[in-house]
Amino acid sequence: MKWNTKITKIEPNHIVTKGYRQEDLIGNVPYGHVVYLLLRGELPSKEYGRMTDAILTACIDHGVTPPSSIASRTVASGGVPLPTAVAAGILSIGDAHGGAIEKGAKFLQDGVVRIKKDGKTASIIAATLVKETSEQKKRIPGFGHRIHTADPRTKRLFELAKELKIAGDHVALSKAIESELEKTQGKKLPINVDGAIAAIISDMGFDWRLGKAFFLIGRVAGLTAHVYEEQTQEKPMREMFSIEYDYTGPEERDLPSK
Amino acid sequence: MKWNTKITKIEPNHIVTKGYRQEDLIGNVPYGHVVYLLLRGELPSKEYGRMTDAILTACIDHGVTPPSSIASRTVASGGVPLPTAVAAGILSIGDAHGGAIEKGAKFLQDGVVRIKKDGKTASIIAATLVKETSEQKKRIPGFGHRIHTADPRTKRLFELAKELKIAGDHVALSKAIESELEKTQGKKLPINVDGAIAAIISDMGFDWRLGKAFFLIGRVAGLTAHVYEEQTQEKPMREMFSIEYDYTGPEERDLPSK
Amino acid sequence: MKWNTKITKIEPNHIVTKGYRQEDLIGNVPYGHVVYLLLRGELPSKEYGRMTDAILTACIDHGVTPPSSIASRTVASGGVPLPTAVAAGILSIGDAHGGAIEKGAKFLQDGVVRIKKDGKTASIIAATLVKETSEQKKRIPGFGHRIHTADPRTKRLFELAKELKIAGDHVALSKAIESELEKTQGKKLPINVDGAIAAIISDMGFDWRLGKAFFLIGRVAGLTAHVYEEQTQEKPMREMFSIEYDYTGPEERDLPSK
Amino acid sequence: MKWNTKITKIEPNHIVTKGYRQEDLIGNVPYGHVVYLLLRGELPSKEYGRMTDAILTACIDHGVTPPSSIASRTVASGGVPLPTAVAAGILSIGDAHGGAIEKGAKFLQDGVVRIKKDGKTASIIAATLVKETSEQKKRIPGFGHRIHTADPRTKRLFELAKELKIAGDHVALSKAIESELEKTQGKKLPINVDGAIAAIISDMGFDWRLGKAFFLIGRVAGLTAHVYEEQTQEKPMREMFSIEYDYTGPEERDLPSK
Repeated sequence: MKWNTKITKIEPNHIVTKGYRQEDLIGNVPYGHVVYLLLRGELPSKEYGRMTDAILTACIDHGVTPPSSIASRTVASGGVPLPTAVAAGILSIGDAHGGAIEKGAKFLQDGVVRIKKDGKTASIIAATLVKETSEQKKRIPGFGHRIHTADPRTKRLFELAKELKIAGDHVALSKAIESELEKTQGKKLPINVDGAIAAIISDMGFDWRLGKAFFLIGRVAGLTAHVYEEQTQEKPMREMFSIEYDYTGPEERDLPSK
Repeated sequence: MKWNTKITKIEPNHIVTKGYRQEDLIGNVPYGHVVYLLLRGELPSKEYGRMTDAILTACIDHGVTPPSSIASRTVASGGVPLPTAVAAGILSIGDAHGGAIEKGAKFLQDGVVRIKKDGKTASIIAATLVKETSEQKKRIPGFGHRIHTADPRTKRLFELAKELKIAGDHVALSKAIESELEKTQGKKLPINVDGAIAAIISDMGFDWRLGKAFFLIGRVAGLTAHVYEEQTQEKPMREMFSIEYDYTGPEERDLPSK
Repeated sequence: MKWNTKITKIEPNHIVTKGYRQEDLIGNVPYGHVVYLLLRGELPSKEYGRMTDAILTACIDHGVTPPSSIASRTVASGGVPLPTAVAAGILSIGDAHGGAIEKGAKFLQDGVVRIKKDGKTASIIAATLVKETSEQKKRIPGFGHRIHTADPRTKRLFELAKELKIAGDHVALSKAIESELEKTQGKKLPINVDGAIAAIISDMGFDWRLGKAFFLIGRVAGLTAHVYEEQTQEKPMREMFSIEYDYTGPEERDLPSK
Repeated sequence: MKWNTKITKIEPNHIVTKGYRQEDLIGNVPYGHVVYLLLRGELPSKEYGRMTDAILTACIDHGVTPPSSIASRTVASGGVPLPTAVAAGILSIGDAHGGAIEKGAKFLQDGVVRIKKDGKTASIIAATLVKETSEQKKRIPGFGHRIHTADPRTKRLFELAKELKIAGDHVALSKAIESELEKTQGKKLPINVDGAIAAIISDMGFDWRLGKAFFLIGRVAGLTAHVYEEQTQEKPMREMFSIEYDYTGPEERDLPSK
């Protein structure tokens, strides 16, 4: 029942993470690079480190609108410690909230395998993928956003991925899919920030199962700010929302007589 | 029922956090500095930014031993999504796990107020505080560690705080308390990493109520690595611990006859 | 490092909880009585069992309005498993949401100790307590409700506590406080459902630290129903609330030039 | 943006759940029956109510061994409120912990559809299902247990389901699968408590997606008892486990020179 862990060795007065003494990392390696180290096992190149850091920042906050912010602030209003309320927001990160990074990365990674195996271009495989998912009445993860049509985070992340020479097959495939979607649907269904991160982490060689990890690690700072704001600016149990609802259950009735 | 938020303004294709457009922050301002921005409202100086980043790295992971790692890995072994398991670890951050940052910061901030109000030296107030807490049979938060007697993180953080000219009254008071504890108790009860962070964030002017925030934001990366390791290297519901226990409840008995 | 537990003994094909074989409890002892057994160590009398069961039912649900329901449904909308979303609702149970049971029970138990120690009547101690808390600008926990002025659950629970001969000193003190509040404030600040439960569990001899336990155990069924309804009737990431907000942070600005 | 909810109507001094006034339910309808009402929309017959209650009791606790108990107690030891620690245990209820109820119910419900559609006996379909899953190298959910070979809860639940005339096609199919597994594997792989509940709730007509709900609602009482025991009998941050581990990550190394 011995565990194996590749993460951290703890001895009295000696803490080694992925081979590096923590006192060497602290203040010498930027936190974003240390995150990369934790998830990959090696320190990033300067370019990969900057890209990882940029991805974390791109996830930092989206105001009071997403389920994670609402969950964290609502739970905070119940009168609980800060970490409890932050954790509630993290719980909402799922298939529909942040999940497009994971699913998008898998989709693109599978797509690039097909490009290489079939010896086809990104455009041809993009057309095939759009056709297949359309026939299955599925949506390709990472396209479209409920608020933004030209998400400034997407544009910036792609610029940076290009500048840092990280953008490769997966970014190319995601752009080919965007073009194909516009062609077949007659309107733009742009790559969203989840889709951009999915493509870039795939070009960086990350396992798609880490898709939600970037969103989670970046967003936790924003959620912390929301909980702190709720705890210091607002009263507990304030009326936060006016939910209008219809009760559509059984009509009022007496208990059956026994 | 209108909310006020100082954090982020969301408009279509326009995302502004604490005044800065997110596309300007992404890849230009290190994530650790963006965390500072979120918690304080202003970008840090170069020194404050590096210190914040260093604090996050000092919290990144402590191996498989603390409650947060165990909670995250145990919950992961139940077969749940990565964010659910990471959140479970965050839930354990409480009065006894990471809580010394919050309580230590409050203690030191109250102490420095007394130093200034009473016009006394740090040594004199330290002696008073040690005496008072000893009489109340309380412990001063942020001293002593279950594993480390000379925590390498503490040493490195204090060095850096000095180098960056951040160390001030609160760091001085914490060191005065350490000396006083050694003098009165006859053995060293060293400042631990929580105590060091408590002192430094106090010298940076942070609200003590944000004490757990730094630990939480930094540690989430380590917890993510633990959950990922559990999910990819281990089987669900593996036997993780051999808990030996004595059942000390009522002896086995029949239901009372009705 | 051996644990002691008074709860359950597990041996192959043999499961004993608080002395009783689980196969004897299943289908023979109502779940509400088993909850009492778990929290107290002994099976309840018929009256105590019925009262415990009634308290759980009084906590079962309060529609879509409280923080717990909103947290659970919001987290469910992120696309996560049912237990993850139910847990998010439980996280909101805190000082301000359900917490009046715990704090109210402590307040009443301390009050009854004073009645006995000082040899005073409930009315006299009630007057003292109202005066003291008013001078400290505090509120007595368990009085007033944001929606109900005559909560039907309170009335029913008190009726039942009387009928089952459970109502005693703590219920009497809570009613004396209600009268005193009306007298001194000139308007009714009625005992709410939390306050009623606080009084009754105190008369049943429960530790006040179990106050939130009753609420939590009862409410989990309602939260489960909310999550199930959200997952089966609604789309993920639906727009649940229109939150109107003013962004009151720093004005939009450029990054400082380096 | 109006919600529809079939669960509870809230008006001042008037609370109606699934058609029934809560004051009528409290103390008149056992909690286990109210749970059925919440999940199905109608009060159960006497038999269905007793069966639901029995299922909740069968889930109540499994000592200090399962991930949920360990997660709750570990989180409690961090020094957090009771509901936070209970929620952590609930988070561990997933595909591998309690998940066999959900997956088992789906498996059996699909199987019974095939029995009816193909006009075959339970034995024949059981043989087909065992063959199919064996070929797919999958396990049929709800069979085998890491500790019990003849789980007393399974036996008792099946007895009761028979006595209450609830046992039907799904229980019959689960027993046919058990026989078939023994025949083909040459050793008994008995129906476990999850499998028994899966079969019985299927015969009661429940949606398989509610599988984890029963486990969760029942187990929350046990988790509450564990957290209370940890908080009242043990010290925070006690050393709970001796985890022996090998650090198998990169060897200790210096930071690369810049």
